[in-house]
Amino acid sequence: MTQRASLGDVGLGTGKKARLRRILFQHGLRNGTALFLPYDQGLEHGPRDFFANPGAGDPRYIVRLAVEGGFNGIAVQIGLAEKFYWDYAGEVPLILKLNGKTDIPSDAQALSPLHASVADAVRLGADAVGYTLYVGTPALDQDFAQLRQVRADAQQLGMPLIVWAYPRGAAIEAKGGKDSFYAVDYAARTASELGADVVKVNFPHPEKRAAVPPAYDRDFSSQEAVDAVVRSANRTLVLISGGERAGDDAMLEKARESMEAGATGLIFGRNVWQREHDDSLRFVARLREVLAKYPST
Amino acid sequence: MTQRASLGDVGLGTGKKARLRRILFQHGLRNGTALFLPYDQGLEHGPRDFFANPGAGDPRYIVRLAVEGGFNGIAVQIGLAEKFYWDYAGEVPLILKLNGKTDIPSDAQALSPLHASVADAVRLGADAVGYTLYVGTPALDQDFAQLRQVRADAQQLGMPLIVWAYPRGAAIEAKGGKDSFYAVDYAARTASELGADVVKVNFPHPEKRAAVPPAYDRDFSSQEAVDAVVRSANRTLVLISGGERAGDDAMLEKARESMEAGATGLIFGRNVWQREHDDSLRFVARLREVLAKYPST
Amino acid sequence: MTQRASLGDVGLGTGKKARLRRILFQHGLRNGTALFLPYDQGLEHGPRDFFANPGAGDPRYIVRLAVEGGFNGIAVQIGLAEKFYWDYAGEVPLILKLNGKTDIPSDAQALSPLHASVADAVRLGADAVGYTLYVGTPALDQDFAQLRQVRADAQQLGMPLIVWAYPRGAAIEAKGGKDSFYAVDYAARTASELGADVVKVNFPHPEKRAAVPPAYDRDFSSQEAVDAVVRSANRTLVLISGGERAGDDAMLEKARESMEAGATGLIFGRNVWQREHDDSLRFVARLREVLAKYPST
Amino acid sequence: MTQRASLGDVGLGTGKKARLRRILFQHGLRNGTALFLPYDQGLEHGPRDFFANPGAGDPRYIVRLAVEGGFNGIAVQIGLAEKFYWDYAGEVPLILKLNGKTDIPSDAQALSPLHASVADAVRLGADAVGYTLYVGTPALDQDFAQLRQVRADAQQLGMPLIVWAYPRGAAIEAKGGKDSFYAVDYAARTASELGADVVKVNFPHPEKRAAVPPAYDRDFSSQEAVDAVVRSANRTLVLISGGERAGDDAMLEKARESMEAGATGLIFGRNVWQREHDDSLRFVARLREVLAKYPST
Amino acid sequence: MTQRASLGDVGLGTGKKARLRRILFQHGLRNGTALFLPYDQGLEHGPRDFFANPGAGDPRYIVRLAVEGGFNGIAVQIGLAEKFYWDYAGEVPLILKLNGKTDIPSDAQALSPLHASVADAVRLGADAVGYTLYVGTPALDQDFAQLRQVRADAQQLGMPLIVWAYPRGAAIEAKGGKDSFYAVDYAARTASELGADVVKVNFPHPEKRAAVPPAYDRDFSSQEAVDAVVRSANRTLVLISGGERAGDDAMLEKARESMEAGATGLIFGRNVWQREHDDSLRFVARLREVLAKYPST
Repeated sequence: MTQRASLGDVGLGTGKKARLRRILFQHGLRNGTALFLPYDQGLEHGPRDFFANPGAGDPRYIVRLAVEGGFNGIAVQIGLAEKFYWDYAGEVPLILKLNGKTDIPSDAQALSPLHASVADAVRLGADAVGYTLYVGTPALDQDFAQLRQVRADAQQLGMPLIVWAYPRGAAIEAKGGKDSFYAVDYAARTASELGADVVKVNFPHPEKRAAVPPAYDRDFSSQEAVDAVVRSANRTLVLISGGERAGDDAMLEKARESMEAGATGLIFGRNVWQREHDDSLRFVARLREVLAKYPST
Repeated sequence: MTQRASLGDVGLGTGKKARLRRILFQHGLRNGTALFLPYDQGLEHGPRDFFANPGAGDPRYIVRLAVEGGFNGIAVQIGLAEKFYWDYAGEVPLILKLNGKTDIPSDAQALSPLHASVADAVRLGADAVGYTLYVGTPALDQDFAQLRQVRADAQQLGMPLIVWAYPRGAAIEAKGGKDSFYAVDYAARTASELGADVVKVNFPHPEKRAAVPPAYDRDFSSQEAVDAVVRSANRTLVLISGGERAGDDAMLEKARESMEAGATGLIFGRNVWQREHDDSLRFVARLREVLAKYPST
Repeated sequence: MTQRASLGDVGLGTGKKARLRRILFQHGLRNGTALFLPYDQGLEHGPRDFFANPGAGDPRYIVRLAVEGGFNGIAVQIGLAEKFYWDYAGEVPLILKLNGKTDIPSDAQALSPLHASVADAVRLGADAVGYTLYVGTPALDQDFAQLRQVRADAQQLGMPLIVWAYPRGAAIEAKGGKDSFYAVDYAARTASELGADVVKVNFPHPEKRAAVPPAYDRDFSSQEAVDAVVRSANRTLVLISGGERAGDDAMLEKARESMEAGATGLIFGRNVWQREHDDSLRFVARLREVLAKYPST
Repeated sequence: MTQRASLGDVGLGTGKKARLRRILFQHGLRNGTALFLPYDQGLEHGPRDFFANPGAGDPRYIVRLAVEGGFNGIAVQIGLAEKFYWDYAGEVPLILKLNGKTDIPSDAQALSPLHASVADAVRLGADAVGYTLYVGTPALDQDFAQLRQVRADAQQLGMPLIVWAYPRGAAIEAKGGKDSFYAVDYAARTASELGADVVKVNFPHPEKRAAVPPAYDRDFSSQEAVDAVVRSANRTLVLISGGERAGDDAMLEKARESMEAGATGLIFGRNVWQREHDDSLRFVARLREVLAKYPST
Repeated sequence: MTQRASLGDVGLGTGKKARLRRILFQHGLRNGTALFLPYDQGLEHGPRDFFANPGAGDPRYIVRLAVEGGFNGIAVQIGLAEKFYWDYAGEVPLILKLNGKTDIPSDAQALSPLHASVADAVRLGADAVGYTLYVGTPALDQDFAQLRQVRADAQQLGMPLIVWAYPRGAAIEAKGGKDSFYAVDYAARTASELGADVVKVNFPHPEKRAAVPPAYDRDFSSQEAVDAVVRSANRTLVLISGGERAGDDAMLEKARESMEAGATGLIFGRNVWQREHDDSLRFVARLREVLAKYPST
């Protein structure tokens, strides 16, 4: 297990520290852990993601769910933030997602273009911004250029930067796929090297070993893998993503292993809202039980 | 042997001279030579480079190693500089690497995109910036455009510019490879022509002669080759890169030949930190013995 | 006595910390104290200040004296920095003075206009900038506006900001004069409140009580006064100015009391160079003996 | 023979005229002709060009040769200008080459990317800028866009623009090659149409008629060809390039024919410095004898 | 006598050195001295200055006189440069005067407002810019702000900055007047401290002692005074101004004393052109005889 760093020890300036402290200690369990509700799937996958629970297609429903569920933040794109955050502004932290894309074209040259700015996030009272970086994409020149601007603006305005570090592109597919231990580990490190304050990664799969570099081509437990990923992120706080909906017990075990590894928290969307309202809150309660065991300072 | 130029004779403005003098005469052996610790491999190769010595995956360990080993500088990407340099700020010079890439996609169209600016380097108190130029890449239009901006900003802000001059791309592979004498010699000259203050090259291999231009297709000793490379760099100070880990005696002999040729110093990463802590320092001590024999003014 | 704050505990960002550490620990006694050589009198008072030791009119003589005397920095205006710092660039830290004025017109509306920028300081490799703030002047609107820009630029570029906090103007003259305890104490606090990293003040004179506010109109020892001034500056490091030439023993006693109070160092110009070369160095040696007794971390 | 236009009759603004007059009447023979020394081959071809005379690899040797030989200017890339021009600044005019490339990748899509700006040229005290335009390349969109910016900046800053007009690319190879009369004539006109003040072309070869357009597919003497090229350039002054080293008498005959045609001068590099020092000066003296016969006003 | 500094030893960047070398070694006596022709009196005093020699009211007459007389440069305002320099562009260096004023209002709050930019100077092919600084004026805040911008632009564009350092304002009048030794000495130093490359001052009058500071209130010979002024300017090259028309022998004696003191040259306007054409040239010939005795390197 990697020791989770205290918020005072990870090299943050005043504004970033103030905003992250609000997220981690004034919301949710107020114990330094985080449970975020991502809601960018309407752009990323389209409305099909809401067919399982049509009410979840209504952003107002989701923002209220975030408040009711005691989330540490909700991550949305600019359009929903403009129209729906006002109602609950200040009741749950806003993470403004600054880039995004549809899943209609192929991901071979994956790039998530900017559609909002750090200044938009400030204007809307957000406590962090989110940026999707496609680690391994051939379009890295554009991706790095976008991130450079976002990072510089976030530094200048004291806004925490959460990087969605997603392995993607043809070369990733050829080397074990996007959630191999190799790919997730590299993605976590890349976000850290490029200046993320917080990094969101998928849970690593050490059993996906086809064509990965030799160092990763041996037996690792999932705990060993997630431990390594958190170490690779070093002083970048780690959020583990829920990804597609899966069985609750499996998800909770992943959550437990992630926190055990030193992650700061979880960012679960479809596993939360692709079910009926009260069931969502019951699942959230179980996630909070996990987080309660890993307080930080 | 090429005579190493004095810092006062290589056409530097005041700020660049002040910063290089600090690097060369206020740190390390304080004799005008340099030993740099590069630590950009977490981005360039991924965490696999740290499997040989897991402690080396922690940037704090590396920055402290640079202080303990009496290095003249440590080269890191923006994310690590933001989070880890504060602890030792001013104790070892910072070289902020301004561009970088993962090794996931192919190098046929190699380009290392910018992810930080010279102004970032100034803000962090760095004493130099680093830029990777892929000499021979088909993407040279983007590469030159990036370098032009970096050079102009560095000139304007008095910041020394260290160019990682790396032959790369399909045409290089077809003409003797990336560490042939031909390729390294051309790379050193290119950096000099485009305005580097310091150039980092690999040690040249004159025996790699397959398909190189006729001028290079004859017998050269490695000393003759490295002599020529330093001459080609003319008033651009030369750093010889260690590259992949190899045997200590071979590395030390390369170091000796490089300094004999008039290089200003060495930039050794994996050969230093891909081993246990005390062994790292022992190897550094041997490198320093070499540098001690080549004082400059 | 006020405990001198450690450099790591005064809220500095990375670049400011790196540069101040260089000044305080890589030059002079390398013990966290500072002895600066100010050389802006050619502008502030005109060449008459050099009549006592004509050699001191030559900036090259002064820069060399700063190197020979082991000073922690030399403070000059832009013109001398451009023409004379190159020769010794990096051998002694440069503090670029950003504003200044002649003493030809009256000081009733005192304002020291900007003649250089923080970007100039960066370009010249300076480790700090200096700004003269006339505390109490009727022209405070222009003065604050200038300082606001300098402070913002210094923050953005990681450059330590040293404020020459000088009580000045008709109202100051009417309330005890420019070096009363009241005026100096207020000036130190003003610099701290407006964002100085380091403040330069004159030694306070508690005996100048004519027309000062009642709180200052009682008996204070000079030690009590300077203790209070350093406390007023709180996390702003304090430099005590030498001012006009006076007797050596009196100056040394002021130096001792200042360091005892928790000042970080001294900034002595005319008392140093308004005498023959070797005598200057003898006086510097005595100042260094004082500083050696007050190491910091 | 085309009458060479007087400098006052070619539509130049004040700054361009002042700078060209300096080049043509204050240096060299001071008779309105020009002999330039180009030294961009270290980038364009690599250090192999210096194997014939290793001393020529040292830029300082070349700049001094330009002074000794009474050249009207020396054309170098930004890196060498920054480091080597200071020593002889003002003694021989500087032409700053603004773009360049290595010869490592194929020329099928030839483009010479910008690596410096007109503002750099002004800052360095240059009297002209050079730009390589690849006439016929498929990458003409980028090429024209670059030239457009350079031309506009040069117009704005009164800086003469010398265009290296080089036919290049697959289509050129298929229509007679890069030094056919057809290609050179078209290149001269293209430079003139796009706003060059001076154009540098290779000597045209009317005998290279394979696959050229019918108009060029008949017998022309070399004098007729170069006459036509100078006419095509109209008020754009013409420099004839020496190209690869060839026999002296042949080069001198080309020089004579060029001047007879109305060219303003010659730009000879490898033919000058790919030989021993004194032999270089002897050859230059013969070139000057030719130029002396063609004074202009 | 102060030794005149060599152009290579006064801390100039490449462009400034190139342009000053052209002025000092490619024009006039080509021996490192300078004779400038100022022609800004039409603005500064109005046409009354041309009544003595009406032909001198025609700028074309004056530019030609500068060429005929072998001057090292002519200093004019933007309007005349735009309209009259083209005819002789490149034949005599242009110094573009960037500010100026009429003499109609009182000089008590003297300020010479900008009317042109360094970029204008570049565009017109000028080799230097001129700026009038009123040392001692109460309007120093505006004056310093203007000069700061001009200095920064000149630094950025490699353009030498000549400061007309004129004591002016009510306080100056109260302390000995504008050409007292005290005032001229302070003015020379002020220009140097604020970043002039060259300073133009009036010849100092040590006999004007009424109300000057005590240091200046004793007997100095005019040679002692001008020696001191040149020393105060240190690495700033000094030009002595002719001022109002006076007797030739007196002017020549001042010229001789100035050069003996280490001045770089003279800037004589009314004394040259307020007389008939051939008489002007005869006087110029006598000035050149003086300059010929003081070659520099």
